[in-house]
Amino acid sequence: MLAIVYDGQLRQVDDYPRPALRAGEALIRPSLVGICNTDIEITRGYMGHHGVLGHEFVGTVVACEDAWWVGQRVVGEINAACRSCAVCARGDESHCPNRTTLGIDRRDGVMAELFSLPVACLHAVPDRMPDAVAVFTEPVAAAFEILQQLHIYPTDRVAVVGDGKLGLLCAQVLRLPGCDVTVIGRHPERWEFLGDLAIATVHGHDLDEAHLAPFDVVVECSGHPSGLATARRLVRPRGCLVMKSTFAAESALDMTMLVVDEIRLIGSRCGPFAAALRALDGGLVATAPLIAARFSLRDGLRAFAAATGRLKVVLEV
Amino acid sequence: MLAIVYDGQLRQVDDYPRPALRAGEALIRPSLVGICNTDIEITRGYMGHHGVLGHEFVGTVVACEDAWWVGQRVVGEINAACRSCAVCARGDESHCPNRTTLGIDRRDGVMAELFSLPVACLHAVPDRMPDAVAVFTEPVAAAFEILQQLHIYPTDRVAVVGDGKLGLLCAQVLRLPGCDVTVIGRHPERWEFLGDLAIATVHGHDLDEAHLAPFDVVVECSGHPSGLATARRLVRPRGCLVMKSTFAAESALDMTMLVVDEIRLIGSRCGPFAAALRALDGGLVATAPLIAARFSLRDGLRAFAAATGRLKVVLEV
Repeated sequence: MLAIVYDGQLRQVDDYPRPALRAGEALIRPSLVGICNTDIEITRGYMGHHGVLGHEFVGTVVACEDAWWVGQRVVGEINAACRSCAVCARGDESHCPNRTTLGIDRRDGVMAELFSLPVACLHAVPDRMPDAVAVFTEPVAAAFEILQQLHIYPTDRVAVVGDGKLGLLCAQVLRLPGCDVTVIGRHPERWEFLGDLAIATVHGHDLDEAHLAPFDVVVECSGHPSGLATARRLVRPRGCLVMKSTFAAESALDMTMLVVDEIRLIGSRCGPFAAALRALDGGLVATAPLIAARFSLRDGLRAFAAATGRLKVVLEV
Repeated sequence: MLAIVYDGQLRQVDDYPRPALRAGEALIRPSLVGICNTDIEITRGYMGHHGVLGHEFVGTVVACEDAWWVGQRVVGEINAACRSCAVCARGDESHCPNRTTLGIDRRDGVMAELFSLPVACLHAVPDRMPDAVAVFTEPVAAAFEILQQLHIYPTDRVAVVGDGKLGLLCAQVLRLPGCDVTVIGRHPERWEFLGDLAIATVHGHDLDEAHLAPFDVVVECSGHPSGLATARRLVRPRGCLVMKSTFAAESALDMTMLVVDEIRLIGSRCGPFAAALRALDGGLVATAPLIAARFSLRDGLRAFAAATGRLKVVLEV
């Protein structure tokens, strides 16, 4: 089958072996998949993943022991947990030490004609939701993870550092509790729809002139160490700095000043799919302004080349 | 008056000028003061403080506009806040941007025959509480700050990294919600009383052999970057790493792994005095095993020399 593979080099493969049906899993034919910055990082060596890329998808179950799922349109959580260890028993399946991760860690991803995922990871998509919306479920769930981890108050002032795909989704989710959200970015051409949503914007270049009061919560979505430094500068004493983006290696923060200012630093990753589906179905999060380009899976290499530094590039399978 | 001063060099000064009585403040004659690791750090340049050292004390008010305080035995919070800015209005007086800090930042400290502190910082000491107990109020309050910042569950497994003064107080406070506390240290001679309190201990050298399950909460009290690395290693995914100690400059943590493991990192500093006084008065925290030596203020330089790497050294004024 056709697949986009990374094996030390990004390749399009025409004869990648089809996955077999495994116990407790479903075979899924994706209809639309998204390219995430993590996919791009993997092609630079992140996680050492070799195999099919991709973890953002909407598709249809074509084979499964449980006949109920066959024919269902689904999205899916990316962490395939063992569901039998102490970590899973605690409800932290996304941190299972025995997990594989779709298209990221020892499990082939979704940029292929067929892939396999445990049934426990699947969520049926409401009939009325277009594929182009459903394909955002995974990153929207990652944005909702912040609300899962942290009590965001309606009176909070929140800054989102970074106006990439994840930043624009996090900003939209963070406004939901009623708070005052400002996006710090470098791409004004992406901001028009934010104004309609009453989300403020400041250009990174103008940060010093803007004299922003310190924020209660700052979410780092830039994917760059410089964004982390900016985020640290913007957070008030006793405020919270949420780190959403994974970037290369170590980053230095002044730990003594974190103690003096009693900053809370929170790492944040995968989140609740059911909440993300409800929010998308209920129109709480806009996704259309985030789509930069569509390619066919056969043009996957061209799509990857086009995806760096852009908003969401999606692939039709 | 006699004072222990740091002005680029640690000195005993016999003719330091007596403080004048200021509006809203009280003049206090300390009876017992403690040497904190922060005092030692200041003699190495931390905070750039020049002036009288010391911030842990119990003493008696000798002059105050409000006659009620005169003659009261008191302890005192160390942050002298403006109580008129937005940060103070929010209740974050210990983070007031206009604050001075007793013996640490632009305010003479307690290692003198007399010092001044705002009345708003004072707490009367219960009559039955010995000076040798009351002098621990400030560091015990710092330990209670963890319970103020974080919901510690009775079912939590908690590790305290460091068996210095602050570590031994934090361990005692952290056991109060009923949880299972383990101290990781390098001074077994300090641990006997911990066993009586049902607090477990592991030697840092034996950490690899101990095969400890990851902890829900890890509190870094070692004062060394290596302690922070140990603490990070001990915390479970989605667990919390509390940083209590301030140490030199930047310390590198792998930020990507903080995101992947969704670790919460919390800086923690000064805490609630009223809670600390109640706990000390009610016998919840043992302080006698923490006193390593007593000196008179006149032997202050000798006391400082003796304090490095020791438990609490106290000075009688």
